[in-house]
Amino acid sequence: MQHAIRLAARGPARGINPQVGCVILDADGATIAEGWHRGAGTPHAEADALSRLAPGAAEGATAVVTLEPCNHTGRTGPCSEALIAAGVARVVHAVSDPNPRAAGGATRLREAGVEVDGGVLASEVEDLLGDWLTTARLGRPVVTVKWASSLDGRAAAADGSSQWITGAPARHDVHARRSASDAIAVGTGTVLADDPSLTARAADGSLLADQPVPVVFGHRAVPADAALRRGEHEPVQVTGDDLAADLRALHDRGIRSLFVEGGPTLASAFIAAGLVDEVLVYLAPVLIGGPRLALQDIGVATLSAAPRLRIERIHRLGDDLLVIAAPEKGQ
Amino acid sequence: MQHAIRLAARGPARGINPQVGCVILDADGATIAEGWHRGAGTPHAEADALSRLAPGAAEGATAVVTLEPCNHTGRTGPCSEALIAAGVARVVHAVSDPNPRAAGGATRLREAGVEVDGGVLASEVEDLLGDWLTTARLGRPVVTVKWASSLDGRAAAADGSSQWITGAPARHDVHARRSASDAIAVGTGTVLADDPSLTARAADGSLLADQPVPVVFGHRAVPADAALRRGEHEPVQVTGDDLAADLRALHDRGIRSLFVEGGPTLASAFIAAGLVDEVLVYLAPVLIGGPRLALQDIGVATLSAAPRLRIERIHRLGDDLLVIAAPEKGQ
Repeated sequence: MQHAIRLAARGPARGINPQVGCVILDADGATIAEGWHRGAGTPHAEADALSRLAPGAAEGATAVVTLEPCNHTGRTGPCSEALIAAGVARVVHAVSDPNPRAAGGATRLREAGVEVDGGVLASEVEDLLGDWLTTARLGRPVVTVKWASSLDGRAAAADGSSQWITGAPARHDVHARRSASDAIAVGTGTVLADDPSLTARAADGSLLADQPVPVVFGHRAVPADAALRRGEHEPVQVTGDDLAADLRALHDRGIRSLFVEGGPTLASAFIAAGLVDEVLVYLAPVLIGGPRLALQDIGVATLSAAPRLRIERIHRLGDDLLVIAAPEKGQ
Repeated sequence: MQHAIRLAARGPARGINPQVGCVILDADGATIAEGWHRGAGTPHAEADALSRLAPGAAEGATAVVTLEPCNHTGRTGPCSEALIAAGVARVVHAVSDPNPRAAGGATRLREAGVEVDGGVLASEVEDLLGDWLTTARLGRPVVTVKWASSLDGRAAAADGSSQWITGAPARHDVHARRSASDAIAVGTGTVLADDPSLTARAADGSLLADQPVPVVFGHRAVPADAALRRGEHEPVQVTGDDLAADLRALHDRGIRSLFVEGGPTLASAFIAAGLVDEVLVYLAPVLIGGPRLALQDIGVATLSAAPRLRIERIHRLGDDLLVIAAPEKGQ
């Protein structure tokens, strides 16, 4: 399994599919083939390994694979059937497939008389799979909602001026987190008002290596000359009418992490819908008062109904403060 | 001077007057009298020391006193004149009198031919005088504005429910800070809506040793059966029409520190007036949204006009966060 994990890590860490590795052993425990998944549209790890063998060579063999073989016909056929057809006698896997559409491989294999053992080195493989596994279990991307506000919760002054509430270190932190996210979300209101480029940049203004996909929520059209059209990725637009459905659609495109930048309407909608895994509040030591709030109405009528978070970390970023909080479990 | 400081420390640390000590030395440097100030209406330290001596005994002596002798006729006569009349040849003091109405003693003494040396062990005496000195220089109490809010800056939910946004450790911290303050300020709106007792209590509900004076800002009458009338101190009411004048009046009553508890209208008025030395924000990891803000309009039209603070300390209090900030100098 250690070797299968090393093979898995050769595959791409982003995208719709997980990193999976597979080693095939003969009856004496000698490796006779290995394989790994190279990304969407290419063979799964098991199929890749089997393809290295002459017909009949896998008869009675053991397949060691980091993820439960799939039972699902996608762009490739189900791995469970391929293993059965090859005559594999035993399958050892680490993590069960969390995807309801792909799961069931272990059951199918056992029905066909294959011995199946799961859970071997599962925690190492969970570490490798990281957010793929989290999002496969959720059926949607991991959602981080971020805002920057004054200590009194304002995102701008009465005239709309908001550059810069926070200082350069806080802004660089935002860019690093954009770069670490698969996609970045804004509402059409923000696109039309601020025309943001939504790129992830270094302190010197240069583009960081990993750029997030811009995702625009709302019905209004994104102008043809919008700055966010000039980035590395074509923007994706969803209506925002049903955030849960929008997130499923983004997940189906391989987006594992969504960084919700705002404006306040979109941030408030995600929080009101309970579709938030992490909240980042960049607090600047300034007082603004007035009507321009970082968060609007989130449908809380009484205090006991307000979503409780736990503060996970606090960072001083220059003069500012970053509070990282997550919803309390069970809400 | 060390001995004069020890004498000074015997006096009361709260109230309108400072702690002052005085030692009188003969021409050989031997102590012939000592004195200290025991509080408003009692003799100043110099007068107390001189009163221990037979007439003529201070002729040619040196008076060592922690604070510049006053030149002001209050409930007692000016100490400068008493020292001159006693024939004192030299006065050594630590800190100059910051009170414009009492200062000028050193000049008066020099005019009368007395040798005067200031600044001896000044920093030790400044430490002893603490907030008396700060407030004498300001001509008003030190003002701390405190609020508790959600991470998004709300003080209550839409229905007004606000108990408890913050947890017990944050509330105990508030009570300890109330007890350390000479007075606690609330608006009439809060008195009428919440009927707070404004006492400082321990975790077990018992009263702490030092209780602040309740100060009510506003025109509306405090009901005869208001909870804040049942405390140790008679409440003080001021109009709030001119906060600077109100603060001078409180200072004249010996109030050195004012803890502004709210509500949002009063907190906003102090911030808008720039009459704040410290801001305490108790941030609870909850999101509320909606209309009930911890801070209202503070007269900021554009971001560059917003008062900038610096974050001085951050404390984790149970699940909550206390951010202590102070206005940037020069604002």
